[in-house]
Amino acid sequence: MASKSFRSLLSLARPQRKLGYVSHRNIRFVASTSILANARPNFPCVDAHAARESLLVSLSKRPPADEDEDETGPEPPYARPSPKSYLKFHSEAPLQLTYGSSLPSFDVAYETWGKLSERRDNVILLHTGLSASSHAASTEINSAEGWWEKFIGPGKALDTNQFFIICTNVLGGCYGSTGPSSIDPTTGTEYATRFPVISIFDMVQAQFRLLDHLGVDKLYASVGSSMGAMQSLAAGWLHPKRVGKIVSISGTARSTPSSIAMRFAQRSVLMADPNWNNGFYYDGLPPHTGMKLARQIATITYRSGPEWDLRFGRKFRASPSTDQEPDQPRVPALCPDFLIETYLDHQGEQFCLKYDANSLIYISKAMDLFDMTSPALESLSLSWPKAVASAHLGHSKSHPPPPNPAPHLPDLAAGLQPLAHIPTLILGVQSDILFTVDQQREVADALRMAGNHSVSYYELGGVWGHDTFLLDVLNVGGAIRGFLS
Amino acid sequence: MASKSFRSLLSLARPQRKLGYVSHRNIRFVASTSILANARPNFPCVDAHAARESLLVSLSKRPPADEDEDETGPEPPYARPSPKSYLKFHSEAPLQLTYGSSLPSFDVAYETWGKLSERRDNVILLHTGLSASSHAASTEINSAEGWWEKFIGPGKALDTNQFFIICTNVLGGCYGSTGPSSIDPTTGTEYATRFPVISIFDMVQAQFRLLDHLGVDKLYASVGSSMGAMQSLAAGWLHPKRVGKIVSISGTARSTPSSIAMRFAQRSVLMADPNWNNGFYYDGLPPHTGMKLARQIATITYRSGPEWDLRFGRKFRASPSTDQEPDQPRVPALCPDFLIETYLDHQGEQFCLKYDANSLIYISKAMDLFDMTSPALESLSLSWPKAVASAHLGHSKSHPPPPNPAPHLPDLAAGLQPLAHIPTLILGVQSDILFTVDQQREVADALRMAGNHSVSYYELGGVWGHDTFLLDVLNVGGAIRGFLS
Repeated sequence: MASKSFRSLLSLARPQRKLGYVSHRNIRFVASTSILANARPNFPCVDAHAARESLLVSLSKRPPADEDEDETGPEPPYARPSPKSYLKFHSEAPLQLTYGSSLPSFDVAYETWGKLSERRDNVILLHTGLSASSHAASTEINSAEGWWEKFIGPGKALDTNQFFIICTNVLGGCYGSTGPSSIDPTTGTEYATRFPVISIFDMVQAQFRLLDHLGVDKLYASVGSSMGAMQSLAAGWLHPKRVGKIVSISGTARSTPSSIAMRFAQRSVLMADPNWNNGFYYDGLPPHTGMKLARQIATITYRSGPEWDLRFGRKFRASPSTDQEPDQPRVPALCPDFLIETYLDHQGEQFCLKYDANSLIYISKAMDLFDMTSPALESLSLSWPKAVASAHLGHSKSHPPPPNPAPHLPDLAAGLQPLAHIPTLILGVQSDILFTVDQQREVADALRMAGNHSVSYYELGGVWGHDTFLLDVLNVGGAIRGFLS
Repeated sequence: MASKSFRSLLSLARPQRKLGYVSHRNIRFVASTSILANARPNFPCVDAHAARESLLVSLSKRPPADEDEDETGPEPPYARPSPKSYLKFHSEAPLQLTYGSSLPSFDVAYETWGKLSERRDNVILLHTGLSASSHAASTEINSAEGWWEKFIGPGKALDTNQFFIICTNVLGGCYGSTGPSSIDPTTGTEYATRFPVISIFDMVQAQFRLLDHLGVDKLYASVGSSMGAMQSLAAGWLHPKRVGKIVSISGTARSTPSSIAMRFAQRSVLMADPNWNNGFYYDGLPPHTGMKLARQIATITYRSGPEWDLRFGRKFRASPSTDQEPDQPRVPALCPDFLIETYLDHQGEQFCLKYDANSLIYISKAMDLFDMTSPALESLSLSWPKAVASAHLGHSKSHPPPPNPAPHLPDLAAGLQPLAHIPTLILGVQSDILFTVDQQREVADALRMAGNHSVSYYELGGVWGHDTFLLDVLNVGGAIRGFLS
């Protein structure tokens, strides 16, 4: 175990990382297949885990980083004690949670863009996906590019000439909001896995406490992609009178067994890492190997097969193995060899020290638990909201019921009934394998069945899969701009 | 490290396993979410790995199993020293491999059904998927049900009244054929990761050495599903004059980046298990945790989302957590909780001691490397076969080129040219996410483009995904029976 906490360790690791300290990708991969010699083969991809561990241990012995060091960036090192790159709302009042527990107090980290109107009626609440921070775009106090930089600004999809945009780090996260890596005020130590299981609704309740604090009574719109789309729908459900419009991009109203399975696989490899230590690793070394493996699996679900076929095909990494005989066929390696493999390896390596493992576990679980069908909602300790006016249940003439309705459609329509009077944009991507286009259709159909006559529905083509919402400024941005105007 | 080898250890573990020694699924899952007490939460799903390890260590200290003990079954414990449940062909002549290496000698384990005709012209060579043994159906020396029991027998898809069926354990496997767990005759110890990287073509060459030994000059048909379909096509390519018909079910002629990515994720979690020890674990404990995690990921690719939706929906495991307050909402657990999670957990647990980790790595790599496009084939040390007669390149009138041909189609057609005169059945499943229906169409289109006018092509519906070939006796079996008759 290292002597310093992982939080201070991370700040040490960061500048090094930029210099490529996790350098196994630059090491020549050695073919493991020669039977000419009896020497045991080398596996640089396996050695990389031990090398990362050694480096973290040695870094933990260096003096702490200068507090004035530039620590801004799209994803600030998590759980920094003195945030300088975002704003923070602290609530001393407790937060009652969906599954019966409560947090005695909590923080919400947030950033804003544009100017709040005098009537405070131009607010867009932007929700994030699983691992993103509040840094959706550059700000005066953090000039680094944000994760939705091209979608936020004057004349952009979220037009800062018109709107005041707020983005928060979600409850359970590790970029300034209260999560498993935060100090539990009742014990004085990190929550770790004593943190309660949270829901998407809890994330939204925390956001609305921030809105109360800012004096914002009604949102112009609630906007989100991926897990952010879940929050966007949940905001409309919890507070139908406080949400003017809803944008749900590549989301769902009901996590399916397939998507639960993919997230379960990620949690399983993470929790099997001995460093995870049942979640109590904050005084030692983090489960960096488990995080790398989990991120590799996640990355598979974020893109699509057709894109990889176009981008990587079956190409191998550039440099062949060193055991190669000049006249012999190329000897493949058991370590990453195809470009698709080195890509996944790289994605995992980049992420494994950037994000808190427990946050990943809790937030991915919250996604699994998300279910807006009426029986599921009734099982939670939530007060069922009254719709603004009684909805006229039933499909409109222009949008009759689908010929083969999903089996859960009536329950989902009943669950979404509070959203019957909120204009809603549902946008999905046909190549998305995580939040499939079937799920997008299901949300749109259920809203229409719930009596919502203002459902805009778009399907996008293209090969970017789930990540389309980060990449397709023209089509995703265009649909949002049109819907919000 | 245990004092006994893993091979003898396995035989000890087996009877215990039947008694449910890996019993964490029967342990009550304890909710990890209570913040009432300051006690650290329990994670039975994580403890299960350590419990399995302890049990393996304690089993290794028991006396070895009685040699007469009944060890038959569909998947015999691997690398048994004296096989009783299958036949074995031993070759003292070396096997030259595709990537330049060679094996000094090798074994092929096999089983047969039906009766060889006097003219030896009724032979069907049945190829297996990744992890299956030669035990496709029950035999006189092994009465246990096989993995294709319902497809083999009198009047069945592979009709034993008519055909003599041979199924082998593949080269690289661990059920009697030479693989990484076999003893390298040049060193007297297990090959481990000194085993050379092998290809699908190498597996088929080993099978044809068995056919030579049995005096079988020409196959009536080469039949396989999944990786077996790859072998089935490879057999036709290597020996166009010795293969009468080809059946390829849910296979591909060119592994795609998506399927490589899923197998890469499995290898990565396995190789990260410290027990893997760069492949040298045969004198100690196997990487059982890595194997369990790898199998969980694999299982996700074997079934389809729609089936899981029908089968599991969003149902939780039957028994709620013990921390449950009666009037409170159900508190979810971070360990497996949804039925889809307990299903995947169980699949991983069942498999993790049944199969050799190095075999999984080598065979899954062989699948990744499979590519029948002409440039890929030309890069291998294989002699390009001469077709039986010059093919008439170009599509037939009844099967003109597809309107949007896959980009690799011309190269694939050139690669498949040796199969131009072999009647071929290509069967795919629309819900298969691993070997997608696009890949099935690609093979059929390429064969037709190569001048093959006897391509039968079927697509099946249903919700079983890739596993359809194991389950759908009516449709898969019917198509095979019709094609072979």
